[in-house]
Amino acid sequence: MRIVSDIDHVGIAVRDLDAAVLHYGRTLGVEPAHRETLEVQGVEAVFLEVGRSAIELMAPLRRDSPVGRFLDRRGEGFHHVAYRVDDLAATLAHLDAEGVRLVDREPREGSRGTRIAFVHPSAFGGVLIELVEVPG
Amino acid sequence: MRIVSDIDHVGIAVRDLDAAVLHYGRTLGVEPAHRETLEVQGVEAVFLEVGRSAIELMAPLRRDSPVGRFLDRRGEGFHHVAYRVDDLAATLAHLDAEGVRLVDREPREGSRGTRIAFVHPSAFGGVLIELVEVPG
Repeated sequence: MRIVSDIDHVGIAVRDLDAAVLHYGRTLGVEPAHRETLEVQGVEAVFLEVGRSAIELMAPLRRDSPVGRFLDRRGEGFHHVAYRVDDLAATLAHLDAEGVRLVDREPREGSRGTRIAFVHPSAFGGVLIELVEVPG
Repeated sequence: MRIVSDIDHVGIAVRDLDAAVLHYGRTLGVEPAHRETLEVQGVEAVFLEVGRSAIELMAPLRRDSPVGRFLDRRGEGFHHVAYRVDDLAATLAHLDAEGVRLVDREPREGSRGTRIAFVHPSAFGGVLIELVEVPG
């Protein structure tokens, strides 16, 4: 049974968002497709288009936020990988039945009008996985 | 100028390759498309198909190998992200001209008949980047 259909994006934590966007553009030729500030999560993110996928560069709005603490603990670098799924609620039910530890047991609102959920990194050898359902 | 055209794969270091392949298959529904042993690099890898991209699960053949040392140092988890490029030699020349530190200054043989080169992680905030030119 196919569950994930694509790599939606790779999330990378950076300290200086504008500098990182410029660097990725100049070196890899990838351009911003979307910029979003998520006040509640304390993060600002830019999605750089790469074919059917994207690179999400994320910088904290404040040090006391999940991405701020991540940078303090581990420094800049890979933060998560996001897989696109056809049916997020069904995927979460399937993972729960398989005993996979979830961060989000229900879909919640993501950026770009998506529905998202995170899987606990302990379930995939330390890799934080985001599941993304793209509307319509 | 477009340089990278897609996320080719995400590389993840694991200790037990067969167990990881089974786990990814059962939970995310992704199936092995290719398995390869690279004696020189001391690594065995399985590519799991995800749309136009893949998840590369990598396990060391011996502890004294790049992936073996990675596991000793950092444990299981994200290892690298690979972007597909149209012209690898031209991309390396461009990156060199931009002052980007390269691991490989010339394309070399990759798995699945590809040509590849690695960019030094210090050039992208700690993220190890592989560039992949797919033949034909």
